[in-house]
Amino acid sequence: MNTDMPAVGFGLWKIPLEDTAATVLEAVKAGYRHFDSAADYGNEGETGKGLSQAMQEGLVTREELWITSKLWNTFHAPDHVEEACRQSLDDLKIDFFDLYLIHFPIALEYVPIETRYPPEWVYDPDAQNPVMIPAKVPLHATWAAMEALVEKGLVKNIGVCNYNSGLVHDLMAYARIKPAMLQIESHPYLTQERLIRLAKDYGIDVTAFSPLGAQSYFELDMAAEGESLLGAAPVMVAASAHGKTPAQVLLRWGIQRGTAIIPKTTKPDRMRENLDLDFELSQVEMAAISSLNQNRRFNDPGTFTEAAFGTFHPIYD
Amino acid sequence: MNTDMPAVGFGLWKIPLEDTAATVLEAVKAGYRHFDSAADYGNEGETGKGLSQAMQEGLVTREELWITSKLWNTFHAPDHVEEACRQSLDDLKIDFFDLYLIHFPIALEYVPIETRYPPEWVYDPDAQNPVMIPAKVPLHATWAAMEALVEKGLVKNIGVCNYNSGLVHDLMAYARIKPAMLQIESHPYLTQERLIRLAKDYGIDVTAFSPLGAQSYFELDMAAEGESLLGAAPVMVAASAHGKTPAQVLLRWGIQRGTAIIPKTTKPDRMRENLDLDFELSQVEMAAISSLNQNRRFNDPGTFTEAAFGTFHPIYD
Repeated sequence: MNTDMPAVGFGLWKIPLEDTAATVLEAVKAGYRHFDSAADYGNEGETGKGLSQAMQEGLVTREELWITSKLWNTFHAPDHVEEACRQSLDDLKIDFFDLYLIHFPIALEYVPIETRYPPEWVYDPDAQNPVMIPAKVPLHATWAAMEALVEKGLVKNIGVCNYNSGLVHDLMAYARIKPAMLQIESHPYLTQERLIRLAKDYGIDVTAFSPLGAQSYFELDMAAEGESLLGAAPVMVAASAHGKTPAQVLLRWGIQRGTAIIPKTTKPDRMRENLDLDFELSQVEMAAISSLNQNRRFNDPGTFTEAAFGTFHPIYD
Repeated sequence: MNTDMPAVGFGLWKIPLEDTAATVLEAVKAGYRHFDSAADYGNEGETGKGLSQAMQEGLVTREELWITSKLWNTFHAPDHVEEACRQSLDDLKIDFFDLYLIHFPIALEYVPIETRYPPEWVYDPDAQNPVMIPAKVPLHATWAAMEALVEKGLVKNIGVCNYNSGLVHDLMAYARIKPAMLQIESHPYLTQERLIRLAKDYGIDVTAFSPLGAQSYFELDMAAEGESLLGAAPVMVAASAHGKTPAQVLLRWGIQRGTAIIPKTTKPDRMRENLDLDFELSQVEMAAISSLNQNRRFNDPGTFTEAAFGTFHPIYD
């Protein structure tokens, strides 16, 4: 990797609000130094409490931490980018991000922070038919505002999430400050070999979210039971061969192919398990796991926003 | 469709130079009024001869024709867009295009017309290792130059080819003049339902190139024999039921789902056959043909540019 971001981060998506502060503190104790947050996760204030407590207890310093957050869709307009970044910084009780990412290549109508925060997907959730309202903000304008955050010292690195190869080429054409990171869904059912190769060709590091695949989506009814990767034959065979769990094999596969990963858990045992990846899969094992690919994307706005509120907004097709 | 472009056009890609003028004249006689050209096809001068002759013979007027051309990758820089458009207009011996399209969302280093025309993919074909050289020209800058062509009266409509949904959203955010057309590969092995639906939601017409699928790619060694659609069961069944050829069924499927199509042939009989689509497939036939989809893309720069000259440049991943 080009950045010095720890390859295994702690993912904060879907950590329940009431558990977040304690979970974050526990994660620091377990050894995590990289935290992957986002305004949209709705728990940045509690994450900030956990991190502050860890620093107050002397477990870790700010310099030892890598903290990522993400610009939500409703803040794409250049006038709102700094406001969103500062809100996230305030919530996390820090004065700079190691990495700040555009969360989706989707610009939505602005919702003032005092109206609702985080604003999520629909413009007015109390409307009779809540819908997403796209905003006419081009991605290059948002990127220029992201660059301004670097120049102001609010963030050290900037990047994007959920961009496809067409958008990455265009970003590379207009970026004055190059993206340091591309964060995308990736696991053995969605290996994204070509997109990852393209990013690396451009010198962009890649973070794979949902490294365990379907596991992140069962609770959201966005994956079927049969889609779990934990029981997939090449995963189980490798787990048995190395005396590791299937989850550890999936995570090791992720980092061994050169992506960072951001698994999430609230269980201290699982936290340590997910960091304990100091083993090596053979080339045959790696290839067997990669061959599970079926281009299965669980996190697809073209599907879930339509299912949730009737707004068809594909970005990967 | 929102434009008044005839739904069945005559595709000029891969028409051999020595046949082009006669083929175009023949196509006009067969009834074609929509011609799909591009600088990159290398036969615009000969196409112009055929069209001129047809007009001189009184077979058709300029007003009755719909002529499309495309901006090649090496002319994306705003300073070169008008030059490229005027070259294509001069070659075709006309003074406006009905439609001018960005050929690919790929900006390549400029090659002067006097150096080589059309410039094709690699910067210097005589180099020891010919390679593509990307140019740092963002798509929004190219689009602004396309808009200027409309304002100068050189083109009536503008649009794009080979954009994915992520790029279409962004285009809609920065376009002052809306794209009238999205031209994409589509056939029953690559149905592109979501991208087509998105374009229609935005009021953008869609043209499907390679409407017969693999047929366009055998001669380029970019399709395997088993990939022909002409022998696919639902196509053959419908052909038999309607007393039409499998090719006519594929073309009818294309227009019946609301896309324009641009089949190519040099054979006068085939020209007439491809225009003779005045029959209707049942909903069951349409669905059976659509269910052949396997997301098989024959025209993929991420594959063919690497195979041809070692430059990995995916745009759809």
